[in-house]
Amino acid sequence: MAGLFITMEGPDGSGKSTQIALLKQYLEKKGYETVLSREPGGTAISEKIRDVILDRENAEMGYRTEALLYAAARAQLVEEVILPALDAGKAVICDRFVDSSAVYQGIGRSLGIEEVYRINEYAIRGIMPDVTFLLDLDAAEGLRRKRNQAELDRMESESQAFHEAVAEGYRMLARKYPDRIKRIDGSASIAEIHEQIIRELP
Amino acid sequence: MAGLFITMEGPDGSGKSTQIALLKQYLEKKGYETVLSREPGGTAISEKIRDVILDRENAEMGYRTEALLYAAARAQLVEEVILPALDAGKAVICDRFVDSSAVYQGIGRSLGIEEVYRINEYAIRGIMPDVTFLLDLDAAEGLRRKRNQAELDRMESESQAFHEAVAEGYRMLARKYPDRIKRIDGSASIAEIHEQIIRELP
Repeated sequence: MAGLFITMEGPDGSGKSTQIALLKQYLEKKGYETVLSREPGGTAISEKIRDVILDRENAEMGYRTEALLYAAARAQLVEEVILPALDAGKAVICDRFVDSSAVYQGIGRSLGIEEVYRINEYAIRGIMPDVTFLLDLDAAEGLRRKRNQAELDRMESESQAFHEAVAEGYRMLARKYPDRIKRIDGSASIAEIHEQIIRELP
Repeated sequence: MAGLFITMEGPDGSGKSTQIALLKQYLEKKGYETVLSREPGGTAISEKIRDVILDRENAEMGYRTEALLYAAARAQLVEEVILPALDAGKAVICDRFVDSSAVYQGIGRSLGIEEVYRINEYAIRGIMPDVTFLLDLDAAEGLRRKRNQAELDRMESESQAFHEAVAEGYRMLARKYPDRIKRIDGSASIAEIHEQIIRELP
């Protein structure tokens, strides 16, 4: 059985964690050994980098610094977790990956999508997802869900205009890479979204 | 008075800190307001990144992760410290800069000098030193000096072969960029080295 690399993308509060848990159950029933990961983070070193990125104290962080830190955390995740798991034929489901950098830093921070992908190509060494599910949700609705949960981190605390640019950026990416990125209506029910994800699996 | 950007490079133990302190005194007598910085570090955020890079616990760190973290720390230093100081006409003396990444990651880690400069071009936005002093010292002698000082960090703990490749990499860079990089014999006396640095100032 060949490895399978799936990434889940979408604004904060779009339901990625819930769908990842359901997808994991499904893939394990199909016989896959499944590895879950999240970004930024997923290894001891990447979690330390995550702490620097998301700490609200680091308000002075430059946008290029931010983009390079995400790429560094991702490089470590690919080397320590994703590559070995795929080589062993496992299914990897990652909560956010390069497309998050493309929209949050490339569009939200206006660094440019191409520039951000270029930095990330160096980090990920060609390891792109087999399929990416975009849980598309109105930015305001995502933030409303998120605020009910917990204190917001440095990225979640950005303005609503930032989060709206991110949501629109995701739709643009899905139009640009229709073979890889499957856009799903994030306002549908949990069960409906799960069904659609399963239908779109490679 | 225009800003002046000077970087000091060389193996660990080559005497950079001592020469930076003397050069600072000299430039201040000449009327420059002088800003000192060190890499990785030099800003609150860059120092947090430094902690991740140099912590000996992080033995699993991939070479690309390491290169991207150095670039991230540098991007923050350029944005928060170097650019504003140069714009204000100050002299900036930096203990290590892009050439350190070129030799430690590009050569020591075999990532390739061109690749490492490319990542760093993104980080530094064209802000290259006016002059770089390379304190050239035999790697074994540098390590001997360093071991007498303190516990070694994750980079200093690398093998002697690594440090020899770094020392040779520095000489290669000095041959490649003779207009910018001035090679100085690090085994000369402190006073002799200082005199030579002053003679080579732009």
